[in-house]
Order: sequence, then structure tokens, then C-alpha cells
Amino acid sequence: MKLWAKNTASLKEVEQFTVGKDREFDLLLAPFDVLGNIAHAKMLATIGLLTLDEADQLTTELRHIYATTQAVDDTRFTIHSNIEDVHSQVEYLLTEKLGDTGKKIHSARSRNDQVLVDVKLYLRSELEKTVHSVYAFFELLIKQSEKFKTHLLPGYTHLQLAMPSSFGLWFGAYAESLADDTVALKAAFDVVNKNPLGSAAGYGSSFPVNRTLTTRLLGFADLNYNVVYAQMGRGKAERMVAAALANIADTLSRLSMDACLFLNQNFGFISFPAELTTGSSIMPHKKNPDVFELIRSYCNRIKALPNEILMMTTNLPSGYHRDLQLLKEHLFPAFETLRSCIDMAGLMLSNMEVKENILEDERYQYLFSVEEVNKLVLQGTPFRDAYKKIGLDIEAGNYTYSTHVAHTHEGSIGNLCNDHITANMKKIIDSFPFSDYHQAFGHLLGK
Amino acid sequence: MKLWAKNTASLKEVEQFTVGKDREFDLLLAPFDVLGNIAHAKMLATIGLLTLDEADQLTTELRHIYATTQAVDDTRFTIHSNIEDVHSQVEYLLTEKLGDTGKKIHSARSRNDQVLVDVKLYLRSELEKTVHSVYAFFELLIKQSEKFKTHLLPGYTHLQLAMPSSFGLWFGAYAESLADDTVALKAAFDVVNKNPLGSAAGYGSSFPVNRTLTTRLLGFADLNYNVVYAQMGRGKAERMVAAALANIADTLSRLSMDACLFLNQNFGFISFPAELTTGSSIMPHKKNPDVFELIRSYCNRIKALPNEILMMTTNLPSGYHRDLQLLKEHLFPAFETLRSCIDMAGLMLSNMEVKENILEDERYQYLFSVEEVNKLVLQGTPFRDAYKKIGLDIEAGNYTYSTHVAHTHEGSIGNLCNDHITANMKKIIDSFPFSDYHQAFGHLLGK
Amino acid sequence: MKLWAKNTASLKEVEQFTVGKDREFDLLLAPFDVLGNIAHAKMLATIGLLTLDEADQLTTELRHIYATTQAVDDTRFTIHSNIEDVHSQVEYLLTEKLGDTGKKIHSARSRNDQVLVDVKLYLRSELEKTVHSVYAFFELLIKQSEKFKTHLLPGYTHLQLAMPSSFGLWFGAYAESLADDTVALKAAFDVVNKNPLGSAAGYGSSFPVNRTLTTRLLGFADLNYNVVYAQMGRGKAERMVAAALANIADTLSRLSMDACLFLNQNFGFISFPAELTTGSSIMPHKKNPDVFELIRSYCNRIKALPNEILMMTTNLPSGYHRDLQLLKEHLFPAFETLRSCIDMAGLMLSNMEVKENILEDERYQYLFSVEEVNKLVLQGTPFRDAYKKIGLDIEAGNYTYSTHVAHTHEGSIGNLCNDHITANMKKIIDSFPFSDYHQAFGHLLGK
Amino acid sequence: MKLWAKNTASLKEVEQFTVGKDREFDLLLAPFDVLGNIAHAKMLATIGLLTLDEADQLTTELRHIYATTQAVDDTRFTIHSNIEDVHSQVEYLLTEKLGDTGKKIHSARSRNDQVLVDVKLYLRSELEKTVHSVYAFFELLIKQSEKFKTHLLPGYTHLQLAMPSSFGLWFGAYAESLADDTVALKAAFDVVNKNPLGSAAGYGSSFPVNRTLTTRLLGFADLNYNVVYAQMGRGKAERMVAAALANIADTLSRLSMDACLFLNQNFGFISFPAELTTGSSIMPHKKNPDVFELIRSYCNRIKALPNEILMMTTNLPSGYHRDLQLLKEHLFPAFETLRSCIDMAGLMLSNMEVKENILEDERYQYLFSVEEVNKLVLQGTPFRDAYKKIGLDIEAGNYTYSTHVAHTHEGSIGNLCNDHITANMKKIIDSFPFSDYHQAFGHLLGK
Repeated sequence: MKLWAKNTASLKEVEQFTVGKDREFDLLLAPFDVLGNIAHAKMLATIGLLTLDEADQLTTELRHIYATTQAVDDTRFTIHSNIEDVHSQVEYLLTEKLGDTGKKIHSARSRNDQVLVDVKLYLRSELEKTVHSVYAFFELLIKQSEKFKTHLLPGYTHLQLAMPSSFGLWFGAYAESLADDTVALKAAFDVVNKNPLGSAAGYGSSFPVNRTLTTRLLGFADLNYNVVYAQMGRGKAERMVAAALANIADTLSRLSMDACLFLNQNFGFISFPAELTTGSSIMPHKKNPDVFELIRSYCNRIKALPNEILMMTTNLPSGYHRDLQLLKEHLFPAFETLRSCIDMAGLMLSNMEVKENILEDERYQYLFSVEEVNKLVLQGTPFRDAYKKIGLDIEAGNYTYSTHVAHTHEGSIGNLCNDHITANMKKIIDSFPFSDYHQAFGHLLGK
Repeated sequence: MKLWAKNTASLKEVEQFTVGKDREFDLLLAPFDVLGNIAHAKMLATIGLLTLDEADQLTTELRHIYATTQAVDDTRFTIHSNIEDVHSQVEYLLTEKLGDTGKKIHSARSRNDQVLVDVKLYLRSELEKTVHSVYAFFELLIKQSEKFKTHLLPGYTHLQLAMPSSFGLWFGAYAESLADDTVALKAAFDVVNKNPLGSAAGYGSSFPVNRTLTTRLLGFADLNYNVVYAQMGRGKAERMVAAALANIADTLSRLSMDACLFLNQNFGFISFPAELTTGSSIMPHKKNPDVFELIRSYCNRIKALPNEILMMTTNLPSGYHRDLQLLKEHLFPAFETLRSCIDMAGLMLSNMEVKENILEDERYQYLFSVEEVNKLVLQGTPFRDAYKKIGLDIEAGNYTYSTHVAHTHEGSIGNLCNDHITANMKKIIDSFPFSDYHQAFGHLLGK
Repeated sequence: MKLWAKNTASLKEVEQFTVGKDREFDLLLAPFDVLGNIAHAKMLATIGLLTLDEADQLTTELRHIYATTQAVDDTRFTIHSNIEDVHSQVEYLLTEKLGDTGKKIHSARSRNDQVLVDVKLYLRSELEKTVHSVYAFFELLIKQSEKFKTHLLPGYTHLQLAMPSSFGLWFGAYAESLADDTVALKAAFDVVNKNPLGSAAGYGSSFPVNRTLTTRLLGFADLNYNVVYAQMGRGKAERMVAAALANIADTLSRLSMDACLFLNQNFGFISFPAELTTGSSIMPHKKNPDVFELIRSYCNRIKALPNEILMMTTNLPSGYHRDLQLLKEHLFPAFETLRSCIDMAGLMLSNMEVKENILEDERYQYLFSVEEVNKLVLQGTPFRDAYKKIGLDIEAGNYTYSTHVAHTHEGSIGNLCNDHITANMKKIIDSFPFSDYHQAFGHLLGK
Repeated sequence: MKLWAKNTASLKEVEQFTVGKDREFDLLLAPFDVLGNIAHAKMLATIGLLTLDEADQLTTELRHIYATTQAVDDTRFTIHSNIEDVHSQVEYLLTEKLGDTGKKIHSARSRNDQVLVDVKLYLRSELEKTVHSVYAFFELLIKQSEKFKTHLLPGYTHLQLAMPSSFGLWFGAYAESLADDTVALKAAFDVVNKNPLGSAAGYGSSFPVNRTLTTRLLGFADLNYNVVYAQMGRGKAERMVAAALANIADTLSRLSMDACLFLNQNFGFISFPAELTTGSSIMPHKKNPDVFELIRSYCNRIKALPNEILMMTTNLPSGYHRDLQLLKEHLFPAFETLRSCIDMAGLMLSNMEVKENILEDERYQYLFSVEEVNKLVLQGTPFRDAYKKIGLDIEAGNYTYSTHVAHTHEGSIGNLCNDHITANMKKIIDSFPFSDYHQAFGHLLGK
């Protein structure tokens, strides 16, 4: 029987549908909701909406609740099945313990700015973990680049043999790619790291809230000033973060595509220990690069995420809409997924074996044709004429070459500039103000 | 008859298909190709691949060609129909004039790094124009925010009447949104503003090219060091720029949606002079907001662009692929489109008329319910109890209210903080190093 | 410590990463895997790879396992934590019970065609449920269209008041939209309803398998003949199904947008019982349309799904890749989500109250201007002249009008043609060959 | 100076912005606009809004105009620069020639249903051309499949060597893929092939228009009955058509990826005459597959088009919005682009040379391991045991094999079933009712 043919009250179905998986994702927000509550309580005391004593009681109790959000045993924070969301659960716990004082904490705010601040604190924290993960992987890539800098590799253009490359270049390229990805990540971080608290339902409040104070207490770099814009930040913060993750995902997925190709037997440039590959149910000889295929697939999915968020928010007028609630469901797990992919890529690359002397094989002889052209140029032949001569030699079967590669300019096989790349990366990493809010959180938690 | 059933040589069709619309888009790259050529020639002279005299001749001739790329009369630079692209056209002109000296300029580079540097210089230049356009629009929004700061407006959540808002808040919100968009734009600019020249076909060169020198000559902030990564920058630069444009487009499309709604007769908050709206072929009373609908549509199309670029580049292994050529076709016109949208939005908003005393209408009475709740709270009632009381008053028909709105906190109706928002925007704008490369270009052009 | 710095064997992490959430989604495939096994066993007996007795034993045991996949108590089918997937679990159960006979069932197939056939059977089954759900909703829309056919409503173009519309038209429009969506759904169904079994790993088998027989046994309409194409169907079937769901989602999300607008107080055309809307934590008067906002958001997310699948499969060469495994994670739940949205939309629309006499309000007077133009035309004035006259009347304040609407042509307010629309829908619905495979499954299960 | 700082009237800029590139795309619609006009005029005469004589005059004149839309010389139909669109241009020509009679033709319709019917007729016509193009390419693939059916090829899974495949299978797989793509194309065609004329601005008309008559006159299979739905068809028809093109594009792009890989020297399975490949500016030995790379890129761009259309139409309430105008700009050229890609793919594949005896190379020995397993199974060993034995043989270096491949089942190397695939394709192709509307158009044009 269709739901709409029922005579009974439909409240339950409506509630189930509207809450959806929110309780599950709200657990991720719980510690941040508590921190936001502490900052809000402290601020309320400065404008007379709470007494200092009430604020202290609330702070003490909130710190206890915070501890439960960090617990891994059965004291762990949960959201009761008859309570709608994390905000109500925290308020319920406070009221249960402190009575009317608990009820007072929702003054001068709305669930809208509460969830906004929770989401921003959560995103900031996940971005921090992502930065650490990316940096560790960057260092591995640089290390492998140095280790394999003399291992030559065919370089392809149009997937056709082109010129000599090296594993030093290959690893270093992905490291430098991550450095640029981190530039974009920093921009997303900066947009996220602004305080929306105090914007209430998106139109501010008649209470004289001190938003500058909560900004400082929560370690934000600045405010989202305009309250209408603060509300617009919902959806926008998620989208910008997703776009920043997508850059990293693109770097990883391309690396994975290369790895699958290099492992293919027609290329055969690399191999992995048996325990890092998988077999087949009908082909006993298979050593499949499933890990890279799954990294590629997870990462390509993450690359589709900014578009999904745009599709869910496009043409919504300004002001809160419940649509925004669902943005959590694919974005929040994407952080963990991306870090898993980075971890697994690190595991694979640190155990990768590289074939020796690949370019000695005669099938790669034409890789060196440009070198031969260049030799003529250095002897005074204009480039276009030298190019023609070698082309004719190849056609006539008169082509000879040397496999010695002596590139010296910045960023070439013989001069990888990994130190410059590392210095650039270091500079971006150091520009993230993580310690500012670590310190602020320490104060809030009385540590 | 099918193409593949023809007996004649198919070279012509292949050429036509592979060149496509490239000549058209290459014209946009022409001035940048010439500048890249000057820098390359000067560098070649320092490493002995050109004599100083040859470099001077080339520079002189290239400056003449540059002038033709800026011409608007019939001396204007064109690409001959039997010449494949801008690079070949420039080289053809040089060779026609200077003979063997012209042929020498292609030493130590490939069309791959040539087009890479052209694209990056073009993107950098278009980003600069975009920044100026965004900033002018930002200033208009701030001006209108101040002008209309006392004009109240209903604020909606869930598209339901919620709380009082104001045109001051509305204009200011979009201004602050642009400031955050500009943060992301700066990151894209920084990724773009690195020199790929010298990476040749993506694997470097056996010539001792001085990439640091061309970096300085072209006013880049830094190099793409790793040559394999330099090549990966194709597609990546385009995608990051598209994502940055998409942010601005999202701000504009949301503003346009609001404007269409506010102009709708059921809202009726704003109006425009007749010459800025359009009529109907069958409904004589219509005053349609076509300009905003088209801004919304153009901007939503731009928002789909990063995804399109991802679709065209996903799962391509490292190394150049001809696929990348087509990225120009939708991205390059997007700059002009976006700036047109900004211009037209500016035209509309600067001529917008705002209805007076909107909130005096009794249908908006419940907008003030939160204010009434808050008054009770300030008199000592716990928030949750005050909320219940006003709710019961509304149900019982006992609700009374005042339309006086006295919000004072940061970013609220009575305290827009437009000065803070402007200061933040100014700081980002000032961080773009435009003058660095203006100066460098001046040197290259002998000015 | 980084994973890649560990000395211990990393097999466990690799396994965890590669299995991912597969066991969870494989449970959905379990009944279909069992059915595929029965068909395969019966076929093997016809080509001498199993004796008739072995096939009977396997069939009997597989029917028992099938029953466990339908159980809701603790006899329910599960996948052991040390077993990789549903295919291995079923084979494990058979071997545990039947020894060597159990081992024989994997002859002449691969996990690739096993999962392919499972996925196709699952998609077919979910499409069937979706069709039923869509049809029930269609009938509700037609019913409401008839019920409210005399309730006039403003019709908007450019979101500007245009001409009279009606709730009869509004409901009927979405019904007819679903009929077209079902045409596309049928095409997806037809592409899905072809048998890939026997394609093995995508290159066929040296065993003389009888694919025509398994096609008939599983109730497929036809085969995917070419085995390489059969494998290409992975990803393609998912994408085509997602695109078909996206059409329905688009119809629902537009309906939801309309509903949110109509419920907005400035429009005020419709209302809902209190238990179907939600309140606000700070605004006591709110009755928010959360259900429609969430339908809109879920549906917009589904609309992004075909693009996500494309992003995950683009530029993968032919042949299986592990990437394809992850397509299940967002597509499989989308069926349930879409049907929930349909259910909830049905609940809302069947309880919707429509305001009476909306168009009597003078603010809607210009809706009737076209009617006045048409009257003049019917009296002999050329259209363009009549149009001018009424326009001038409006400007001069001389406009008069009647609210009587007498549209008679096909599909207009006075002649909705719901019978034609229903007949078209009925015809498409009847073209789905559901009973064919219900019957085939009955045979496989001995019913 | 900013546009919005100007004192002069801004009408011109607004007009320029709103018209955009519409005149260019409207030229494509011109013949269909004229045909729609003839049908409309004939219908108006049956309901007394035109005399028979007026309808005849209009028909005669419209047939003259139609001829100009087909001209290729300087009598060719153009849209004057001071006329907004094709509809106005046609009406202008009629009025210029026939005076008041010309003015009467716009009775009982709106530009909204005019452009709707034009777009649908245009899409229908382009879909027809696409079907013919796809079918010709299908036939080529089947021909090449038969020609190369004994040419074996390595089959890969996970991009790892798996089992023997053949060029017969490879060509045939893409042919069968196109057959399924055509199923989806037919659904899009059916949704398009319904008449929206008479829906006026989306709310019908008080005139007693005979929509059944115009449906028949224009050769549509049916009506879009509900006038509100007819208007919703704008955007929806475009999206469904784009999704149908995307399927074909996906088939072509995967084929292109395979071709690029097979041409790569590490694979070296295929080659092309020199005039179908391109060279390099610095590498004299290159023979690049630019044609396939560009097909891949164009096709991947087409695959992003459905998403773009969704982004531009999502969350627009029902009723016409000017946003829809821009859908033409990327969709209309996509037809020509896709057909070009098909043409070029046909050119390449019909000239492709296939390497002989690829699998004789010892590096492909393990491709035959499954065959060896199967031999043991046929001799009575349970599959799982046979699989283990061959696996151990391979590890121990005892593996022996035969390169004889004897697959006989449906769709395998030895039994391609191209006749079945062709019969299925033929059946779909024959189900398109092209001749119905060719005949109807003949009547309208008096032929």
C-alpha cells in the first residue's frame, strides 16, 4: 500500500525522511559543536545573557561532553534516537544536568549558525589532516625521485615514443603537482577559516553578540562579516573544499593511470611484491594492480564531487534551504577516502621495483633522435635543417645514436631541482595557521 | 558518399579536422607567442645558440609583429590559411624577413612548451582583466549596500518568511562573496604564473637553456621546475582557472536568481527602467528580467566548465595528448562572457529601484517574532520558554510586534562592516603582482 | 606512523582497501548471484561439464541458499569476514555441502561475467520497482489534476505574471513528464535486459557454453552477443540506468521547486497539514517545506550521478578494470532514494490544500490581457494591432478584463486530455516484459 | 569607463547582450520555422482566423522563403541586423509582401511555442542525420570485424595480459555498442517527436486551435498534450538528446583510446598510412594518432554536455525562462561535431593495417593459461584444482601451451554472431518513422 493511502498520521515517515542519515554525520560534528558551545557561552557571559557562574557551569559540563566525543569505549557520545540532531543532543544533556541554565545557551543564535560553525570547524580540521597526509606523500615522492634519478624511462607524447625521461622526473613531477594542489588547498582553507557564528538564521540577531570574541575564541583568522553572506557560506565552503580535494585527486588518479600502464607487460617498466597485487579467479598468472585501479576510481569519483555540489545548490535563492543538509553525505567521507588513497599510493610507491636499463632496448632508439638533431644544431646547422637531415636518415635506415643523456637545465633529467620544489612546498605548508587554533582550542578546553 | 569510401587522398580532411578552429583561438595567443619568442631569443643569445646580432634582429622583427597583433586595421596579424598555427606563422614571418636567422629561433624548444607558455601568458592576462572587472563590481555593490542600508527586506529561510533583512545586507553579502571568490582566483593565478618554457616536449632539452632567465624576462613569479610537471600543467592550469571563474559565476548566478524573484510581482521588491527589461510578443504588460536570466544561464554554463575540462583530461596518462588542444574552445570565450555578465549586472544594479517600506505591510508581521522572543529573553525569560510563549501568542491571535529593527553586532543590519569587507578585498587585490610582468613586458618590447 | 614505513606484511591493508564496502553491496546481489548459479549449473549439465545428478544437487542447494537471501531473521545470508565477495561465499557454501561438485560450478565462467550478470539482474529488478513506483505516482498526479481542474493559478513566464494557468494543468504537466521519462526508462531497461553470462573474463571461453540457454533460463530478452562488448556493458549499463533515473529526478526536483515557491507566503497558493511541515528553532511561526527541499536535493544529487559514472569510466581502454567495482556505491542506493522521494512527494501532494479563487485578487489582473487581445482578434482586428491597443490601454489605465477562462483546445485548461496522457503512459508501462522473467525465475526456483 | 557609469541610454547594450549569438543559431532553425508557419497558417484557416485565400497567400509566400533557407548563393535567407530573431524576420517578410495578412499569422501562438516547435523539428532532423551516420559506421565495423576475424590480439583485464582476443571481436564489440546506443537514441527521438505547437506561452490559448491538425501536418507522432508540459519540454528535449549523443560519444572515445594504445610502439598492433597521422616539430620519427586523440577529446566534451544542460536548467521553476535560449550554443554544433568524429573514425578504421601473428610472440604465452586449465577440466579435473595445477606449473617454469584458439559459443572468437548483431541494429533503425514526416513536409511544401 502506498504511503499516501494510509489513514494514520504520517509524522513518523516525515521525520524519518527529513532526518535521513543526519545523526550519523552529526557524530563527526559533535566535538566541534561542543567547542562552538563553549565559545558561545563565554561570549554570552560578556554581554549579560549569562552570568559568569552560569557560563562556568556550562563550560565545565561542555568539557565533560567533549571528552565523550573523543572516547572510544561505551562512554562515547551518541545521539538518542528520539533526538533530532547533535545540537539538540548537546542542549538536552546540558539541560538535563543544569536545568534552566542549559536552556539559556541557545540564546542569540540559531541552528543555522550552529551547524555552519560546526561544519567550518570540521572542514578546517579535516583539511589540516589532509595537508599532513599530502606533505608526507610529497616527501616520499621527492625521496623516490632522488633514489631513481638515473633510471631512464621512455617519455611519450601522443602515447608515442618521444624522448628520454627518467623515474627521477616522473616521481618529481607528481611531487611538484602536489605543491600546486596545496596552493589551491590553502585558498580553500582561508575561505573556510572565517567565523559564521552570530549570523543566527542568516539575518543576524537583536542581541548585541560579540562576534569578534567568538572568532578569537575559536581560533578563526577572521569573520564572515555580513550575516547574509555567512549563511551563503553553506554550500560554498563545501564546494570550494571539494574543488581543492579534486585537484589532489586528479594528481593521484593520473599517477595511478601511469602506474597501471607501466605495470602492463607491454611496457613492463615497474613491478610490485606479490602481496601488493591481486590474482584472478580464472587466470593463474595474473598480478593485477587493483590498488592503483581503486585509487584511480575513488579519485575520479572525488573529481565529480564539486559538480555534484553545484548541481545541488545551483539556482537556490539566498537564504537557508534544507537541501544543504545532504551535502555532508558525500563530502565528509571523501576526506577519509582521499587520505586512504594517499596512504595506499605511498605503500605501493615505496615498494615499487623499477626495471634497470630500460632504454638500452633497441626498440627505444628513436627516443634519441632529438638529441641527434640537437648535436647538429650545436655544430652550427640551423634547427629546421638538422631536423630534416635526421628525419631523412631515419627513413633511409642511416640513423645512429648514443643513449647518453646529458640534460643540465633547470628541471631536466640531470638537474631535477627537487630542492626548489621542496622549498616551495615547505613555504606553503608553513603558511597554514594550524597552531593558532590548536592554541585557541586548548584554552576552550582548559588545557 | 562516406569519406572513407573515397579514393582520393584524405590528407585534406585530416588536416581540416585536426586544425579545427585552432587558427581562430591562436589569434588570441598571438601577442603572447611573440613575447615568448623575444624572451626565448634573448635567452638563446646568452647560451650561444644565437649571436647577439641575430637576437637583436629577431627582437626588432618580433616587436614589429607584436605591433600587428595589437592593430585593429588591415595590418592586423592573421594566420595564413596554409599555415597550421600561430607558432608556425610567426616563424614563417621571421624566416621570410631574416632567412636562416629566422629558422634558428625554434632551437631548444618544442611547440609543446611554446603553446604552454602562450596559454599561461594568455590566462594570466585574462585573469588580470577579470580581477579588475570583479573589483569594480565589488565597489558598486558596496556603494549600493551603503545607499540602501536602511531599506528593509524580508529575509527568507526555506523560502519562508523568517526575519527582517535589508538591501544593505543583500548587496553587501554579494560583495563579501566576491572577496572570497578573489581569494580562490589568486590561488589559480599563482599556479598559472609559473614558467613552463624550456620544458620542450615535456622531457627537457639537451641544450643548456637558461629557464631562470626566461622566467625573469616574462615576469613569471617562478618556474614550473620539473619538465614532466610543466607539461602536466596543460589542462591543469585551464581547469584551475575554470574553477576560479566558476566561483565568481556562482556568486553572480545566485544574485540573478534573487533579482528575478524580487522582481516577480508576488514579491515586488525591486523594479528597473523599462529600457532594461524586455516585453512579450503576446502579453502587452510584461517587463521581463531577461538580462538577469541570461547572466544566470551564462554563469551556470561557466559553472559546468571545470567538469567538462576534467572529463576531457581524466585518465590521460602523463605526456602531451592532442586532446588538450580543444580545451581552448570553451574556456577562452568564458572570460569575455563572464566580464560581460559582470558589466550587465553592474548596469542593472546601478539602475535598480528599491520599493520603500516593504516591511510595513502586515503580511510580513511574523518576521518580527524572533525580535519579540528576544525581548522576553532580555527581560530574563529563558530562551526556550520565550520561544514557546510567542508561538502560543501567534496561534491564539495575541501576537503584537514592533517593526523597529535595532541590530548592532558585526555584520548585522545596523552594522554592515562594509569597511572591513572592503579592506579584506583591497588586500587580496593588492597581492596580485600585475606590475611585475607589466614591467617585464615593457622591457621585452623596448618601452 | 605512515603505512609505508611499516615492516610488517601489508597484505591486510591491501585487502581491506580493495574489498572496501563490497561485502555490503554484494548482499544486494546475493539472490541474483544464486539465480545466475542455478542457470549456469543447468546449462553446464547440457554440455557435459556436470552430470544431471550434480546439477540437481547444486540446484537443490542453491534454492536453499536463495531462501536465506530472502530471510529477515538470523538465518539470513551473510558474507563471512574472511571471504571476499558474494560469489566466493556461494561457492564456499556449495563446496562445504557438496564437496567436489561444489568446486565444479565455476567451470566455464569468470567472476567478471558472474558479477556482470548479477548487476544486470539487480538493475532489472530495481528498474521494475521504480516503474511501479513511478506509475503509482503518475496515477496520483492525474487524479489530483482532475480534482483541481477548475482551480486557477497564475501562469508565469520569466517568473513574471503571464497568463492564467490551473492546478489541473500543473498536476497534469508533471504526469505527462513522467510518461516521457518512462520512455527513456524503457530504453535503459532494454539495454540492461540482455545476458552477459558466458562472456567469462570478457574474451569468452573454450568451453562450448550455451549462452542462448542461460538467456532463456534467466528470462533475458536477448544476449549481449560479442563477449568483448558484454564486458563493456559494465559501466555502460550503470550509466544508462543512472541517466534514466536522472530524468525522473529532474521531474521531481522541478515539481518540488514549484511547491516551495507556491508555499512561500508571497505566493501562498498551497498549504499542508502541520505534521507534514517542520518548525524553526528560533522562529515560532515557521511551517517549512523540508520534505520538498530534501526531495529536490536528493533528486539533484541523482542528476549528478550519470556525470560521476562517466568521470569514473572515461578513457579506460576496453577490458575489465577494478575501477568499475565502485560504481555500485552511489548507484545502488539511488534506487531506494528515488523511490523514497516519490513516496514522500505522493504523501505531500495527496495532502496538499489549494487556495480558492486565487485569480480573483486584482494583483493578477494582467494575466487576462492576452484574453482581451484575443477577443479583439476574434472581432477582426489583426493580432499585432490588437496587441498594441491593449498595451496602450494598460499604460493609460483603461484596461478592463473578465476572469472567465474558456480554453478548449487539446491540453488546455478546459480540455486537459488526461485520458490521452494516461493511455500513452499505460502503453509504455505495458511494454515492460516483467512477467517473462518472473516466470523464468519461477522455473529456476522450482515454483 | 564602466558601462554603468554611462549617462546615455543603455538599450543598445541590453539588446546586444540579450540577443547574443541567437541570430547565428536561428539560421539553423529557419527552414523549420517556415514549415511551422505553413502548418499554423493552414490550421488557422480551418478555425476561421484566416480565410482560405489568406492561408493560400501565406503558404505560397512561405514556400518562397523556404527555398531561400535552402539556397547557397546570395539569395540565401538572412536575419536583418535590426531584427531580433528568425520568427520576427519571417513575419517581417510576410508583412512586407502581404500587408495585414502577414500580421495575422501570429494569432493564437506565442514565440514560445514557435521556438519550441522549431527546436523540436531541428532536433528531429539532426537525429535523423545522426542515425544514418551511426548506421554507416556500424556497417563498416561489422565489415572490418569479418575481415579481421582470424587476427588474434591480446585481451587485457586490469590492463594486464589475460586471454586471447581478436580484431574480429574488437570491431564487433564497438558495432554492438552502437546498436545499444541507438536504442537510447530512439527513446530520445520519440520524446522529441511530439508537437508542442499550440501551447502558446505555456498556458494555451483562448482560440480554438486544432493541435491535432498541426501535429499531423508536421508529421509528429503525437502531441505534447498538456500545455504546461509542452513548455517544460524546452530544456528536457535538449537534455535527453544530449544524453543520447553522449552514449555514442562514449563508444567512440573508448574506441579511440584503444586505437591510441594499440598504435603505441609498446603494443604495436596496428598502423596507419602516413597521411593519416601527423609528425612532430622536434621529433622527426613521430607518427602521431592526432585524429583519434581529437575524436576522443571532442567526444569527451560531448559527454559533459548533458551535465551542462542540467546545470543550466536545475531548480528553475516551471514556465519559460530566458536561460533556455543558451542551450542551443553547445548542443546544436555537437551534432555536426559528432558526425565529423564518426566520419574521421571511419576514415581511420577503413585504412587501418593490422599486424599479423601478434600472439606468436612468446611474451604473450600466459594468455593461453586458461585454455590449459580448461583442457584439464575437460579431462575431468575439478576447475579449482586444474587452476591450481597450472598456477604451480607457471611458478615452476613447467608451463606449456598451444596458440590454437577454438572458441565456438555465441559471441566468441570463432562465432562472432555479427548476423544477430546486425539484425538487431537493423530492427532499431527501421523503427525510426523518418518517412512519415518526410511525406508530411512534402505536402506542406507542395511537392
